[in-house]
Amino acid sequence: MKIIVVGGTGLIGSAVVAELKDRHEIIIAGHKQGGDVQVDVADPQSIRAMYTAIGSFDAVVSATGQVAFAEFSQLTEAQYRFSIDQKLMGQVNLVTLGMAHINDHGSFTLTSGILSCDPIRTGVAASMVNSAVDGFVRGAAIEMARGIRINSVSPTVVTEAMELYGAYFRGFESVPVNRVALAYSKSVEGLQTGQVYRVN
Amino acid sequence: MKIIVVGGTGLIGSAVVAELKDRHEIIIAGHKQGGDVQVDVADPQSIRAMYTAIGSFDAVVSATGQVAFAEFSQLTEAQYRFSIDQKLMGQVNLVTLGMAHINDHGSFTLTSGILSCDPIRTGVAASMVNSAVDGFVRGAAIEMARGIRINSVSPTVVTEAMELYGAYFRGFESVPVNRVALAYSKSVEGLQTGQVYRVN
Repeated sequence: MKIIVVGGTGLIGSAVVAELKDRHEIIIAGHKQGGDVQVDVADPQSIRAMYTAIGSFDAVVSATGQVAFAEFSQLTEAQYRFSIDQKLMGQVNLVTLGMAHINDHGSFTLTSGILSCDPIRTGVAASMVNSAVDGFVRGAAIEMARGIRINSVSPTVVTEAMELYGAYFRGFESVPVNRVALAYSKSVEGLQTGQVYRVN
Repeated sequence: MKIIVVGGTGLIGSAVVAELKDRHEIIIAGHKQGGDVQVDVADPQSIRAMYTAIGSFDAVVSATGQVAFAEFSQLTEAQYRFSIDQKLMGQVNLVTLGMAHINDHGSFTLTSGILSCDPIRTGVAASMVNSAVDGFVRGAAIEMARGIRINSVSPTVVTEAMELYGAYFRGFESVPVNRVALAYSKSVEGLQTGQVYRVN
């Protein structure tokens, strides 16, 4: 398969690339530099340009999407909107704009996260946006044409990121990023659709 | 209690008013005309003006928020954004802007809906936005100060709306709107927080 890994230069994305690269042709889409192509997921024009440059493909893995973290009492509308633009509409647009280029029986795999259901202090925008991504996947899956599938991966905090984020995730059992990568492999290489693969 | 029912002129909102009015002081917020005050939830300035006009209160029930319905292959980014502005950020802003005016131990009760988990054709924006509302509620609940609570009510299709929407909800068991209203009563008059009350 020809697989685009958006955010393939990041922690989770590069683990997905490592998992899939021996069996498939991988195109890594990075944000500013790095990767085989660059894309700003918050900009639909940039997504369109990426797809035009790549041509047809079999799968998109999206391991991208920033979210604002701040105390609920401090979180501004702009920070909610930033989170929506990046992690929610960024991924929604990867799907809707990718539909014109993806091959029959292709797949989209998005990233949400454990905060959808297991919230933490400063995480309300993440809880909102992660839940929205999972809801979008459930809704879109049943209407996809040409045997195209869509799933999301909802990981808990990744062990390799605990040094950075551990203080926010006290008591959470982290998972090694290579275990998270397996869920993307299941989504891309399996046949299920409309699933939220929780890795925790 | 002094309770603001946003969308209190609508089908669900008026059932909530009927359920609560004998025990509480109700302020009905309508959209354009109707109700005791008017508010456009998609406009933060309008929400601010409503809260300033009302002063302090004990509870907000939000039974509002339009969503765009269209085939997944036809749904535009503008229609996703409309749904986000109305049903998601409209309700988020009712909460965040209401925090400055709500009394200690007050509550917010938002409306999501069954499509979050049980999708239908043309419902992908609703699946996305309803899930987001529920996720926001879970995230915000744990950070609320002064004993303030927040829940959502996630109803299936309402019997009284079946003539309008029945064709979209074949096979769904509808519920009478007065049963839906009970869930709002439980949220406002009970003590739970961070809950999604599913009525189906």
